[in-house]
Amino acid sequence: MNNYKIKILPDNKIIRARKGDNLAEKIEEARINLSFYCNKRGICGKCFVEIEKGILPELKEKEKSLIEQKKLRNNLRLACLYRIKNDLRIKIPDDSIILKTPILQTGIKSQILVNPLIKKYFIKLDKPEITHPYSILELIRKYFKNKELLTNVDLLRKMTYIQEKNKFNITTVIFDDKEILDIEPKDTTNLNAGIAIDVGTTTIVVELVDLNSGESIDILTEPNSQIKYGSDVISRITFALSSNKNLNELRNSVLTKLNQMIEKLLFRNNLDNNYVYEIVVAGNAPMNHFLLGTPVTSLGVSPYNAVFASLPELSSHEIGFKINKNGKVYVAPNIKSFVGGDVSAGLISSDFSSRKGNYLFIDLGTNGELVLKKRDRFITTSTAAGPAFEGMNISNGLLALPGAIYKAEYKNKLILHTIDNKAPIGICGTGIIDLIRIFLDKGEITPKGTIKNETKKIKITDTIFITQKDVREMQLAVAAVKTGIKMILQKLKLKPEDLDGIFIAGAFGNYLNIKNSIRIGLLPQIDEDKIVFIGNSSIGGAKALLLSNSARKRVESLVKKIQHFSLAVKPSFQENFIDALEFKNQSIKTN
Amino acid sequence: MNNYKIKILPDNKIIRARKGDNLAEKIEEARINLSFYCNKRGICGKCFVEIEKGILPELKEKEKSLIEQKKLRNNLRLACLYRIKNDLRIKIPDDSIILKTPILQTGIKSQILVNPLIKKYFIKLDKPEITHPYSILELIRKYFKNKELLTNVDLLRKMTYIQEKNKFNITTVIFDDKEILDIEPKDTTNLNAGIAIDVGTTTIVVELVDLNSGESIDILTEPNSQIKYGSDVISRITFALSSNKNLNELRNSVLTKLNQMIEKLLFRNNLDNNYVYEIVVAGNAPMNHFLLGTPVTSLGVSPYNAVFASLPELSSHEIGFKINKNGKVYVAPNIKSFVGGDVSAGLISSDFSSRKGNYLFIDLGTNGELVLKKRDRFITTSTAAGPAFEGMNISNGLLALPGAIYKAEYKNKLILHTIDNKAPIGICGTGIIDLIRIFLDKGEITPKGTIKNETKKIKITDTIFITQKDVREMQLAVAAVKTGIKMILQKLKLKPEDLDGIFIAGAFGNYLNIKNSIRIGLLPQIDEDKIVFIGNSSIGGAKALLLSNSARKRVESLVKKIQHFSLAVKPSFQENFIDALEFKNQSIKTN
Repeated sequence: MNNYKIKILPDNKIIRARKGDNLAEKIEEARINLSFYCNKRGICGKCFVEIEKGILPELKEKEKSLIEQKKLRNNLRLACLYRIKNDLRIKIPDDSIILKTPILQTGIKSQILVNPLIKKYFIKLDKPEITHPYSILELIRKYFKNKELLTNVDLLRKMTYIQEKNKFNITTVIFDDKEILDIEPKDTTNLNAGIAIDVGTTTIVVELVDLNSGESIDILTEPNSQIKYGSDVISRITFALSSNKNLNELRNSVLTKLNQMIEKLLFRNNLDNNYVYEIVVAGNAPMNHFLLGTPVTSLGVSPYNAVFASLPELSSHEIGFKINKNGKVYVAPNIKSFVGGDVSAGLISSDFSSRKGNYLFIDLGTNGELVLKKRDRFITTSTAAGPAFEGMNISNGLLALPGAIYKAEYKNKLILHTIDNKAPIGICGTGIIDLIRIFLDKGEITPKGTIKNETKKIKITDTIFITQKDVREMQLAVAAVKTGIKMILQKLKLKPEDLDGIFIAGAFGNYLNIKNSIRIGLLPQIDEDKIVFIGNSSIGGAKALLLSNSARKRVESLVKKIQHFSLAVKPSFQENFIDALEFKNQSIKTN
Repeated sequence: MNNYKIKILPDNKIIRARKGDNLAEKIEEARINLSFYCNKRGICGKCFVEIEKGILPELKEKEKSLIEQKKLRNNLRLACLYRIKNDLRIKIPDDSIILKTPILQTGIKSQILVNPLIKKYFIKLDKPEITHPYSILELIRKYFKNKELLTNVDLLRKMTYIQEKNKFNITTVIFDDKEILDIEPKDTTNLNAGIAIDVGTTTIVVELVDLNSGESIDILTEPNSQIKYGSDVISRITFALSSNKNLNELRNSVLTKLNQMIEKLLFRNNLDNNYVYEIVVAGNAPMNHFLLGTPVTSLGVSPYNAVFASLPELSSHEIGFKINKNGKVYVAPNIKSFVGGDVSAGLISSDFSSRKGNYLFIDLGTNGELVLKKRDRFITTSTAAGPAFEGMNISNGLLALPGAIYKAEYKNKLILHTIDNKAPIGICGTGIIDLIRIFLDKGEITPKGTIKNETKKIKITDTIFITQKDVREMQLAVAAVKTGIKMILQKLKLKPEDLDGIFIAGAFGNYLNIKNSIRIGLLPQIDEDKIVFIGNSSIGGAKALLLSNSARKRVESLVKKIQHFSLAVKPSFQENFIDALEFKNQSIKTN
């Protein structure tokens, strides 16, 4: 029976254990975030605990050398090597706690435990002797308890230098406990980087991440170089469909751009590209198809299915990324053809699936992508909003760039806020939402979207106007999303007030006025506190997937659960859409 | 409890089962070789059994389509889909029996069950629909019960043709149940080939094998093209050590040769190289290091360790083989640096490890490699015999090629046998052994190896002689092997008569006279019936490893068990060696 009592400080938790139980496993069961970097195999030496009271077994070789090397206290023992034989009082030192890192910049706090698939171990190999002429690969495998580590021919060739140069102290880079990606002379464990990428249709974000601490080293945002082939997804698909050459042009365009951005980040942080071992890419299905050079024939015509949804780990070399030659690339899984890896990443970054209750996730961009969670059930749909929310197709529209009006208020007079406080040069999506609300309230725009004055223009600054056409564009965009929300809620028989939360992600920059969005009918009328704008959740999700093995397992299992709900094939879509064109909140009935 | 009785025909076996037991699993437990090509996942449709008596459940979709397609009897059911609910009498049709194929050509009968890692499935994919817009990869994975099949970018690009050309009937090539290697239009399951290679220091054998039937399609034997860099291993290692360019020359030499031989085999059998998916290579450690272009620095100097022993599955493309682009290469594991993959393959082909009792395996070549099994214990050593057994360094010596005297008898006069009955042009290893025995018996050679006549030459034909130097070469070669046998037996405290069998493998061609080998002292004096010449067991083993997943597991676990016993570092070696120089049987004491 569970005879022994283990008191764990500083949390003051008490757990029960049997004779012979592994201390590490008991601590893990107690949900204490002790670092099990090597999966409790006694290799990494990171799970030291202080034995304050109880049997202190003799130091094992690994423990002894670490305690000497790091000048640690003598009553420290590795939890994964400790067998319980009596009552214990132990203390978890700060150094043994697994690190956490924040994922989202906006809206909700979301943290992730740092447990990447790429791990580095500094190891001192035994020298082969005439009586034990182990091969070099065997010596390495022996260190990893003879795990049948995968490797490749190039690395075998490289391994010889260990013996040639008599350099038996090396650092090994291990992927997912099963493959050696590289061997490096001396101790390079502190150089362990990965890259998170959000390939948006309009904007690309590349983030350089320290895989040891989980911290962001640097981040870069630039326009997607494919814009010259069409500002929206459909026109790029059309371009790609006409020839293989065009498809390759799209691929090369984004790949070159990404490699340039990676190079820029590495250069300004003085990091060699060989120390970057993994990339996680989050993007919608057309974007990740383009990046892999996968034909988009099936995406372009009915039934609009993708070539892939979930992918196994791919080779960075095969894709064409300029990081470590044996590096890996993980592509956040597409949920369905038009609900891509940017959304699955977003769901992960917002902890969407593990929340209790009913939640709606909205990614507002050229497509409005919706994922609805009703307890354990998940459905998704997408709705063609057009590029208005990104400031495109609007007379004075602008991406969320310096000088864009991103926020507007009316306090006796119009107050405009621009990004970086630059002189206003245009209006981005969130700004237009605010302005429409203001002029709806003032009666200058009717609920049906007509600008009342004769010029059919509303002056914002001397050079910036909202035109009748702009209002019409916004009406269409808002109606598409409104219809999607209405129909997806009805599908699962939910009323807006049944929702425990709505998360809004999007390429708006870092601002969306929830009140105004409700007022113009874009969002349903529920308690404002339940609606949270979480910004670019795609790059946050990419970072989470880069840093956490368990996040990756979560996303793979989640996307399998999400059912597809196609709006366009429903006969009621047209009718709902026309109803939704008015700038007002709609009632959503579930029967 | 085991309530139900299952009678299995035609073997007339009776087994017991519980309610709900899976019929396939019970049949497997009964050690009946029913074909479970897809590992009992209901995918391949190969495990049909005839239900002669007992409940006949309604046909499942898979069963129905197969019965219709192949016009089979209606009472056939797939064993892996059948749940036992009552007593049964079933009959295993011949078509459902897993095929066996012979492995060795000489000496002992050894068969292997055909169960390769490469499997092909003809599948009819569901078409994606607007309500179920599955990605193409998902459709394939769905067929394989959503297993997370690995794939690569190139294959993703290729997959699009399925939908573009509306060709939803495809053949998938699956490696080890976990990776898609290729997709091919229509049903190409009958085109599934692999290649077994024995890279000997002197001779290369390449065998084209049908992975469906296990049968040999064709075989080719040619000299190793590396001979121009040195006829023996040491001189090639020396050549490789002097520069990377030299190492690459050795690599290119053998790789080009192998690709030429593969091409020749494929051309004359009218088979496209895309239908060859796997290669198994068996060779000694220096040969497989050269083939992979792995530096041999460590092999060349003390402690003479290799870079690798066991290897994971490698990419054929990375190595440079011209077979299917995504093909795999398995290298038979080296046991120790000078006991290579040719020996581990030989052990597998002779069922060495699964035999009960004590066995000695001898591979006679430039190195004599010995593996001794004493019940569950295995040790190995190697002894430098020099090239005499391969007919090298002998005045009129010759490889086992047409015209070589491979056998000699004395019945009042000397009777010579040549390979292919060609006019004699030289003597190969087995011929020299016979001739030395004959002239020992006649007293023309003394036990100490002196040719008595004044010319110091013995005439064999008008142009072929045995010289004093030849006898000395043979004395050294025989003594090396004798010493090895003596010391390895002593190490495990075995006398020759404790052995249940000796297997002799080697590049002798297909003949070795056991009596004569004992008479000259090469082999210990035991019951002749216990000594079996098994010929080129390396190519046999390569074929077994190509055809059988379980053989591969067996070899990997075996090589881990075999301990290394280094002769050269033993002080007694020199003394034993000098003792062994006499052409006579030695006594082996174990205390």
